[in-house]
Amino acid sequence: MVDSIPSLTRLIAELAKFPGIGRKTATRLAFYLLRQPPGEAEALAGAILDLKARVRFCSTCFHITEHDPCALCTDPGRDDSLLCVVEEPQDLIAVERSRSFRGRYHVLHGALSPLDGVGPENLHITELLTRLKDGRVREVLVATNFSVEGEATALYLAQLIRPLGVRVTRLAYGIPLGSDLEYVDEATVHRAVEGRRDL
Amino acid sequence: MVDSIPSLTRLIAELAKFPGIGRKTATRLAFYLLRQPPGEAEALAGAILDLKARVRFCSTCFHITEHDPCALCTDPGRDDSLLCVVEEPQDLIAVERSRSFRGRYHVLHGALSPLDGVGPENLHITELLTRLKDGRVREVLVATNFSVEGEATALYLAQLIRPLGVRVTRLAYGIPLGSDLEYVDEATVHRAVEGRRDL
Repeated sequence: MVDSIPSLTRLIAELAKFPGIGRKTATRLAFYLLRQPPGEAEALAGAILDLKARVRFCSTCFHITEHDPCALCTDPGRDDSLLCVVEEPQDLIAVERSRSFRGRYHVLHGALSPLDGVGPENLHITELLTRLKDGRVREVLVATNFSVEGEATALYLAQLIRPLGVRVTRLAYGIPLGSDLEYVDEATVHRAVEGRRDL
Repeated sequence: MVDSIPSLTRLIAELAKFPGIGRKTATRLAFYLLRQPPGEAEALAGAILDLKARVRFCSTCFHITEHDPCALCTDPGRDDSLLCVVEEPQDLIAVERSRSFRGRYHVLHGALSPLDGVGPENLHITELLTRLKDGRVREVLVATNFSVEGEATALYLAQLIRPLGVRVTRLAYGIPLGSDLEYVDEATVHRAVEGRRDL
């Protein structure tokens, strides 16, 4: 039994903590590691420790980085008048990957969710407002998720930022590229019709 | 971008080596680890290193163990006249979990697969035959998988073991418990009819 091998039981328990990894998958992963040469397991363990040792949050934009301030905040080729606000570092990476935005970023680390006890004080909103004080930012693009929480956060930010004389924009709603209209949900089609453009 | 954070890129690459874990899942897991307190990441890294440091193969049955010989080989309450042969340690664990077998085990570490270059010399077959020499084992239950390779291995072992005067048995084919007959594949139903028993 696995229980007679404590180190295996322990690794399976640790792997099963990952979201979306159940006990069966964790067992499969642990057995895979067992079959690998020791160098492979050491490389993985080293990479995990290294990540936690090296990665921190940028004190300006709160993106993850190995050097503070991060490369995005120090890049002289970026437009200081544009600021994109996202919920999580992964969202920033998604926007960057689109190569459509050359301004600066601000990572909130979450979205407003009163039911989960997440209020404005739990997000990096105060720091966002401080960044807007010097008047260099002319437009804030709010790229929070299109979920209830993300939308509420976008509205909340708009109410705080508009009085500062800064333009607040939102990513366009619409049909995703390559979609079959037939399979797009009706709310998205509704928004796409509302936001229709001249050809 | 992730590429500007080398330690993150490296961990994602390491995690993506797991079977069934693609780049997207690896990225999700890495970001999850980033959000955890350092203690969590250290526990995972420690468990990985510990596993490789502690777990070895039993020199008798080749099951995984922290102590050689393993607990299954030294347990005085087990029947020395019964030996169950399996492909992998996971298979042994599956048989143990069924609480239906109280003999000893032998793990082959694979099945015959000429196309993949796995011949008898790559499995622990010589060691199996050596274990049968002292005449204590009266029955070998071949519990290799019900795949082409597992069946071929079972037949091969039967040819080697029967001449030694040892009974060779195979797990029963049949309908899995809780199945809807409608959805069981026809080859399994065929075998279940062949192997029908009196009620």
